[in-house]
Amino acid sequence: MPDGVTHLFIPGPTNVPEQVRQAMNVPMQDHRAPDFPELTLPLFASLKKIFQTETGRIFLYPASGTGAWEAAITNTLNRGDRVLMSRFGQFSHLWVDMAERLGLDVICVDVEWGTGVPVQAYQRHLEADPTIKAVFATHNETATGVTSDIAAVRQAMDAAGSDAMLYVDGVSSIGSIEFTQDAWGVDLAVAGSQKGLMNPPGLAVLGVSQKALAAAETATMQRCYFDFADMIASNDVGYFPYTPPTPLLHGLRAAVDMLLAEGLENVFERHFRLAEGVRRGVCALGLDLCATAPYWYSDTVSAVRVPDGVDGAEVCRIGYHRYRTSFGAGLNKVAGKVFRIGHLGHLNEVSCLAALASAEMALADAGADIELGAGVAAAQAYYRRALADRQDLPDLALLASAAPR
Amino acid sequence: MPDGVTHLFIPGPTNVPEQVRQAMNVPMQDHRAPDFPELTLPLFASLKKIFQTETGRIFLYPASGTGAWEAAITNTLNRGDRVLMSRFGQFSHLWVDMAERLGLDVICVDVEWGTGVPVQAYQRHLEADPTIKAVFATHNETATGVTSDIAAVRQAMDAAGSDAMLYVDGVSSIGSIEFTQDAWGVDLAVAGSQKGLMNPPGLAVLGVSQKALAAAETATMQRCYFDFADMIASNDVGYFPYTPPTPLLHGLRAAVDMLLAEGLENVFERHFRLAEGVRRGVCALGLDLCATAPYWYSDTVSAVRVPDGVDGAEVCRIGYHRYRTSFGAGLNKVAGKVFRIGHLGHLNEVSCLAALASAEMALADAGADIELGAGVAAAQAYYRRALADRQDLPDLALLASAAPR
Amino acid sequence: MPDGVTHLFIPGPTNVPEQVRQAMNVPMQDHRAPDFPELTLPLFASLKKIFQTETGRIFLYPASGTGAWEAAITNTLNRGDRVLMSRFGQFSHLWVDMAERLGLDVICVDVEWGTGVPVQAYQRHLEADPTIKAVFATHNETATGVTSDIAAVRQAMDAAGSDAMLYVDGVSSIGSIEFTQDAWGVDLAVAGSQKGLMNPPGLAVLGVSQKALAAAETATMQRCYFDFADMIASNDVGYFPYTPPTPLLHGLRAAVDMLLAEGLENVFERHFRLAEGVRRGVCALGLDLCATAPYWYSDTVSAVRVPDGVDGAEVCRIGYHRYRTSFGAGLNKVAGKVFRIGHLGHLNEVSCLAALASAEMALADAGADIELGAGVAAAQAYYRRALADRQDLPDLALLASAAPR
Amino acid sequence: MPDGVTHLFIPGPTNVPEQVRQAMNVPMQDHRAPDFPELTLPLFASLKKIFQTETGRIFLYPASGTGAWEAAITNTLNRGDRVLMSRFGQFSHLWVDMAERLGLDVICVDVEWGTGVPVQAYQRHLEADPTIKAVFATHNETATGVTSDIAAVRQAMDAAGSDAMLYVDGVSSIGSIEFTQDAWGVDLAVAGSQKGLMNPPGLAVLGVSQKALAAAETATMQRCYFDFADMIASNDVGYFPYTPPTPLLHGLRAAVDMLLAEGLENVFERHFRLAEGVRRGVCALGLDLCATAPYWYSDTVSAVRVPDGVDGAEVCRIGYHRYRTSFGAGLNKVAGKVFRIGHLGHLNEVSCLAALASAEMALADAGADIELGAGVAAAQAYYRRALADRQDLPDLALLASAAPR
Repeated sequence: MPDGVTHLFIPGPTNVPEQVRQAMNVPMQDHRAPDFPELTLPLFASLKKIFQTETGRIFLYPASGTGAWEAAITNTLNRGDRVLMSRFGQFSHLWVDMAERLGLDVICVDVEWGTGVPVQAYQRHLEADPTIKAVFATHNETATGVTSDIAAVRQAMDAAGSDAMLYVDGVSSIGSIEFTQDAWGVDLAVAGSQKGLMNPPGLAVLGVSQKALAAAETATMQRCYFDFADMIASNDVGYFPYTPPTPLLHGLRAAVDMLLAEGLENVFERHFRLAEGVRRGVCALGLDLCATAPYWYSDTVSAVRVPDGVDGAEVCRIGYHRYRTSFGAGLNKVAGKVFRIGHLGHLNEVSCLAALASAEMALADAGADIELGAGVAAAQAYYRRALADRQDLPDLALLASAAPR
Repeated sequence: MPDGVTHLFIPGPTNVPEQVRQAMNVPMQDHRAPDFPELTLPLFASLKKIFQTETGRIFLYPASGTGAWEAAITNTLNRGDRVLMSRFGQFSHLWVDMAERLGLDVICVDVEWGTGVPVQAYQRHLEADPTIKAVFATHNETATGVTSDIAAVRQAMDAAGSDAMLYVDGVSSIGSIEFTQDAWGVDLAVAGSQKGLMNPPGLAVLGVSQKALAAAETATMQRCYFDFADMIASNDVGYFPYTPPTPLLHGLRAAVDMLLAEGLENVFERHFRLAEGVRRGVCALGLDLCATAPYWYSDTVSAVRVPDGVDGAEVCRIGYHRYRTSFGAGLNKVAGKVFRIGHLGHLNEVSCLAALASAEMALADAGADIELGAGVAAAQAYYRRALADRQDLPDLALLASAAPR
Repeated sequence: MPDGVTHLFIPGPTNVPEQVRQAMNVPMQDHRAPDFPELTLPLFASLKKIFQTETGRIFLYPASGTGAWEAAITNTLNRGDRVLMSRFGQFSHLWVDMAERLGLDVICVDVEWGTGVPVQAYQRHLEADPTIKAVFATHNETATGVTSDIAAVRQAMDAAGSDAMLYVDGVSSIGSIEFTQDAWGVDLAVAGSQKGLMNPPGLAVLGVSQKALAAAETATMQRCYFDFADMIASNDVGYFPYTPPTPLLHGLRAAVDMLLAEGLENVFERHFRLAEGVRRGVCALGLDLCATAPYWYSDTVSAVRVPDGVDGAEVCRIGYHRYRTSFGAGLNKVAGKVFRIGHLGHLNEVSCLAALASAEMALADAGADIELGAGVAAAQAYYRRALADRQDLPDLALLASAAPR
Repeated sequence: MPDGVTHLFIPGPTNVPEQVRQAMNVPMQDHRAPDFPELTLPLFASLKKIFQTETGRIFLYPASGTGAWEAAITNTLNRGDRVLMSRFGQFSHLWVDMAERLGLDVICVDVEWGTGVPVQAYQRHLEADPTIKAVFATHNETATGVTSDIAAVRQAMDAAGSDAMLYVDGVSSIGSIEFTQDAWGVDLAVAGSQKGLMNPPGLAVLGVSQKALAAAETATMQRCYFDFADMIASNDVGYFPYTPPTPLLHGLRAAVDMLLAEGLENVFERHFRLAEGVRRGVCALGLDLCATAPYWYSDTVSAVRVPDGVDGAEVCRIGYHRYRTSFGAGLNKVAGKVFRIGHLGHLNEVSCLAALASAEMALADAGADIELGAGVAAAQAYYRRALADRQDLPDLALLASAAPR
């Protein structure tokens, strides 16, 4: 662009921190060198902290998040296995679609878009059908800005006496909002490098429980590229069965260091704070979120319903062309009805105010009857209160060590 | 920073475009290699277009803008020479200070900070004293956000029948607002890499007229590092008399390409548009600019007067620590009385809205009685109208060629 | 490393040119933006030139070369299909292994490691068994430094009247040595970003013929992530079905531009010249290549047989630790018996001399009775003759445009 | 270049380590921000360790090494001051030239190019003329590859009872070979960012003793840009009097960290080892160094005398165009008679072998009657012995922490 950056507020790929860009700017190296494990083994260990698992293990595939979904399914299930899924947005829809294409016997619970995993329905299904082998839950539905309660899913499974495995799509949640693999009994947790992990796309990241690893030993679904066994054999000694994208491993190292230096609790609190400001701004504009109730609000992405007569796609188009701002468009059932503001990853309050300011203009240009500045003002008021105690940089020593040198 | 970028709204160094950062990410090279002139000679030629001079020549020194001031003076004047200057801000003040330290006989016209070069007073002095050898004008006083009328200075000189040389500090104007060296008869135009030229600091850039070059042949002031003659001898064949900062030469190449691709007229129009939005925002907050009248308004930096009882330094401090935003502080006479928003270089409308949004919060926190969002709203309204015709990206082909590949 | 770079002479990942590193150093962008196809569509078109196919189409997957193998097989074949393969090195071995794991009925012709695709045996098999659906050929076996004659494979197929499809592993050949997909009738050509394409690992690249595309419409093997149909639907309009690694797309754009600017014929000639110098050096040291005859010599990698009593792994270990040089180790059957010098990608004569000089020291330290400098001298003599006509940089204008700016 | 990197063996700018390139790849920042001193103050402290001064202070100017020379002179001497200098190469020549142009009364001792500072002659002059205010010594004459004995210069001064100040040009020595400012009583030590400090050009670096600082308070030579007093006032609180090149400050931080992590003694030992290999190679080719005796040998650059009838400039030209290698040309009196191999900064043994291999070819092409490979072989033999104990990477933990992440 000749005139300034394009402001990026899509729910992934997210804004890559300078530290990550620096870390990725490396020459190529031998991925079979004797000291390569010095990079990889600590990285696996650190990623376990991000997933909050002590007993599971981490897999890194050169792939997108879609590849992570496929790795989770093909390594641990058999064709014809009965699985319980739910659908309430484009990404939960696509996961159902993949499961069906891979030959699973899918019980799909369709619920209203704008709500999330139907825990009670899940419990009823599990109680009624003890043959269900796997329960799938989309932790954060990126298309509608809905976060589901994974702990409650686990409770429902336990209450139903199910010994099914729990598969969670955490692509747009892990590293941004609370996710505790061990505590929630998640067997297959799926993430990608390009969201809360603040890297470019290119790495599928999985957290896999011991139970799932055991299942992988007998699962018969066709797999080769995504096979756990090949990965395990190589990863155990710090290598990969094929050439990994080394720059991304360095980038992930830097990103994980940043997240752990900030502290996961602080990361989650920051994402709540940023999101809450955006939500108050949206509310002040007289608009609704796609998420039907606060219970479902996502702290990583807000899907904003546009007023009747306004085209959400037009809001995005104007935002991009006229105001150099990338918003997420509505997808599938909510195409044209929403536009989305991603507020995850490497972001702060003023970034979110820029998003709101740009959205207001794009909305107005697209015909929405809104008051310019009203959303920004509401968010400002919230942020001012939320940050009133921040008298100084949180920790200058931390800053010095984490900052680019 | 652990939580997002620090938003940079100081009047320099400015935000470096990605293209420039890419271009500077080079290995070292031999600055005496046979093909080195392939880089340098076209760069000198392109910079002449930026300065809008056909007859002058460009000098590039490894130095800051202060070095450029010194190069201008020491190469063309003698100790004891009578020169006419004016002072109305920290940077015009520092230039006067340098001139005095270098032994010039300075007639300094002090005018109110918030105004600029006193053209009529200049004319009177020139008429009264034909021994004045040089007239100095700070085109854009960065400390107060004041732009002076250089064409009028030239007219005053001509009207007075003066054959003095005209020295112009264009550090925070060249490449951002209209500057035409030949048309205005500027003999020594001074710039730096880190403002409108969108590069990191490190290069002093001068445009020098033939008249000034002739003066340099007889000027006796002590100089060595900044000597024009050494530079000319080497530059004429594409080299430098000592090791130049090659990454910055590559960066400057990229920046100049971007400016010329956008078109200087469009660059100036964009800077006016961005600045006007900021000014309307400031006005809507009930605040005044340091510049006392629209005649003096600068399109590259706005110095905003804080209300009585509010400390401008506190606004900056809060902006930086609490809201991750760098504003410029008030300097010298206006310390504490203003804070400054830089809006030059690689920037667009949404960036300026972020600046206003952040400034509003910092002002309120510092005790100013302002209405949150009011400034943003006024700027939004202006930007919407100004961009109403921008139905699409201005030129996709241009975009494709100028964009990082 | 505290003391200089680690010299990289593995057969991939290869040395990434500065232009590619610059091009990849980008902020994230919306892969669904209206102008995203401006990047992707021309890239697909340019890659067709690299594969030398006019009628086929290009696929880009976030994956390693192994993923490209899997994509080729799963999209176009059915479980139980009879396929003809050959094995003469670790990578042809792994492809056979994958084919078997994916349920193909593999006729595997094992030949001596150090030779390549057994064309006559292939013809006999094809004549004897008209049910063979697919013929696989590893164009360049990276483990042994052997290049096979794909044109001859096609001739054998034609001579046998086979209408099988031809699958070629060009991971370490495409972009470095002659490869003409259309002329050779290759149906599935497989490459990766990190070899001759001079990018980091992370993109699997396929060239697919119309015949193969037609086969994909009826092939029943399980696939989802690697499904052609999803890719085609999105790629046709310039997008991807899931998030692509955008920095690599920019890097690939730069690399392909470099290759096409140099001219594929010149690229191939350079790779021959570099390789021939290395071979003469190896010969002068009294050592043999793993490739058993010049017919099999690879211009992208030389596997050097170590003398009896010398451990090839030790040569690599010493090279890496003591001399900061990464060589490729012997794999599988030739483990310990060879070490490998990769000479593909962004490389020149002096780089290859450094490789030989380092290899000589590592060999001597590992116990080989060789004359230090002898290999270097033989290569120098060859390079001097080969470059005797290079009086000047080949084309300064080209240089200026291709060089980092 | 389309075909691999240009190998850089000039004595500066030197090869910039990846860590430094990463560190410099930063967005712009406010050089007046509250936490800016967190970067600068520790950097000044670390640079004192590089200069090995506890009592002196460091100055950093946006300038080349030539600027550092000027800063040293203009801050501490008066026009007409008698100073003692010596001339034995292009850079000592240029320093004499500057001193004369700045109005000093220079006693210049001319000695044979290929020798260095004439210590006994210095002592005689000092004994004969107690009015000498300053003694200048070029520690490493880059043009001839000659290192002088600064400790001996100090001894001569002491023996003569001189209280003159000692000015040392350490541009191509500091950070590469032993330099101890306090122990040697150096009052003004001059360096640049682009040599042993492994950064791009752009920063002049000075180490200044308390005695010199005291002299600066009364020295009357014209100065402004380079004035110590302005710098001190700002530096004391972590800032600069004008905009510093912040990317270079980050780069210098990284470089200094690398040097201190390796340990200065190890850095010096490495430079000796690399240089000694090159010298043995040169000797084995039957060629002489410009340095007339081992006493003068420089560990940072070797100027190689070409045989009669061979043009040293042609060697450089062929090296650059035909073999993609940058050597330093002969300058002034030794133009055409030598070519120079820089072996300082971020470099290792295999790099030096590449330099020799390339030089051999260029020499032969230029008509020298040398045996190809002979120089390489001699260097290899030396390096093998020197590194025989290097069984492993020196310190993997160090490696992990210093390596790009």
